[in-house]
Amino acid sequence: MAVFRLFWAEEVGLPADDRGLAYGDGLFETIRMVGQKGVLLSRHLERMVRDASRLGINVSRRELAAVCTQAGQRFSGRFSDDGWILKLTLTRGGGVRGYRPDPGMVPNLLVSASPLASAPDASGVVVDFSRVPLTVNPLLAGIKSLNRLEQVMAAADLGQSLFEVIMSDSDGNLVEGTRTNLLLRVDEAWVAPPAACLAVAGVLRQWLLERLRQRGEVVTERPLTVEDVLGPECRGLFLLNSVLGIIPVRTIAGHDLPVDSGLATIFNPLELLG
Amino acid sequence: MAVFRLFWAEEVGLPADDRGLAYGDGLFETIRMVGQKGVLLSRHLERMVRDASRLGINVSRRELAAVCTQAGQRFSGRFSDDGWILKLTLTRGGGVRGYRPDPGMVPNLLVSASPLASAPDASGVVVDFSRVPLTVNPLLAGIKSLNRLEQVMAAADLGQSLFEVIMSDSDGNLVEGTRTNLLLRVDEAWVAPPAACLAVAGVLRQWLLERLRQRGEVVTERPLTVEDVLGPECRGLFLLNSVLGIIPVRTIAGHDLPVDSGLATIFNPLELLG
Repeated sequence: MAVFRLFWAEEVGLPADDRGLAYGDGLFETIRMVGQKGVLLSRHLERMVRDASRLGINVSRRELAAVCTQAGQRFSGRFSDDGWILKLTLTRGGGVRGYRPDPGMVPNLLVSASPLASAPDASGVVVDFSRVPLTVNPLLAGIKSLNRLEQVMAAADLGQSLFEVIMSDSDGNLVEGTRTNLLLRVDEAWVAPPAACLAVAGVLRQWLLERLRQRGEVVTERPLTVEDVLGPECRGLFLLNSVLGIIPVRTIAGHDLPVDSGLATIFNPLELLG
Repeated sequence: MAVFRLFWAEEVGLPADDRGLAYGDGLFETIRMVGQKGVLLSRHLERMVRDASRLGINVSRRELAAVCTQAGQRFSGRFSDDGWILKLTLTRGGGVRGYRPDPGMVPNLLVSASPLASAPDASGVVVDFSRVPLTVNPLLAGIKSLNRLEQVMAAADLGQSLFEVIMSDSDGNLVEGTRTNLLLRVDEAWVAPPAACLAVAGVLRQWLLERLRQRGEVVTERPLTVEDVLGPECRGLFLLNSVLGIIPVRTIAGHDLPVDSGLATIFNPLELLG
């Protein structure tokens, strides 16, 4: 397994020739920490190792975990008991000009910490449909890569009164928010857009779908339409983000939706520390 | 007009919170320099200013031009008379976590210089079709942004014996190479994929299409198919890159193509210094 060069963001940036900057040639994880432990930490690390491998970047889970331990010791005392955010940015490295990746490149790992933002309104948030279409390359689907310009452009519309915008693919199907995955409650089932069409396949989404299935619920992965959300069958729309949690949508594009706060109680971050 | 923070890559990298690294939230230009002058420099600067504006990043052409002058003075003496490469990387800046861009962010501009690579074989190069599909968001079409992971993945197949791979869209149309635009010669006309479907709309492509039209040639912008290239009407396929020039393709996916070196003489970098 390749080692990586470790950079603490509070001390230094990445070298100017880093391919994460040049081409978005890398990926990242944003982990909710409580003290020195991380919520769904194993899943975050597994996703990073697996998706890095899809990009041809080799990194070992054991070494990533060791960095998280170091980061926990370094940062946990600086933040409140509610927790903090650990961000890992892994790039292919640098040193050679041009798109072509060299298998011999040594990855760079940038580690940073930041305070938790305030929790979203538990009574539901206001969202809209995004004017920015989402395009997902099948080869890169689900990877939390550093190519996030579509999300940036879509997020320009967010503000005090708009918590999230929902992006659609070229067929008009609802795929995900800028920083959240979608889950819809209909009469007798849960519906989520399939993993293969997602820009980012979130760890909370995966955990929650497994958990619901374990509880015997019907979970269907299929394309989600505007009619699904605005039609009479909708019993609630939820946004999923491993740092922010499970967030009910109260209003979408001016339409009020039924709000069921029951789902939020399934996800207790404090029970999922690793 | 916003100013930017200027960084010389030989001295320092960008700050760890830079959004170019975090999200690919920025764009770049790679300019062939001869001494202190740049080939098609005006077009490079115009494209950067225009496309930055599409991303909501404000930068003035005058200030960019001043940086190029500084760079020319700083670097030109270090390279051979054949020239060198100037790279400008402009990002939205940094300082705030999350995708949402803040209009008050001050852009970062990273400037680097590198030697010219050896010129491609004037008798024609060997290319193949890429296994990596190209997906282009209509809102970002043509922008030489820092989101280039598709090109990186495709370029993994390049090597000594393969100069370029041609990427196709989801309809199977040939769009562009990893670092080159396409131009096809058929019996009585030139054919180029339309600008609206391009990942990167190159400055040499634009210059050349204008020049051909000025000379009274028929230039058609329409989707390009595999049959166009492999069929009997093909009189030559050319790759366009403002640093590398106009490059005839000799072989594509094992099929020999007619090679006409006449086009290369249209583009004389030394006549286009600004």
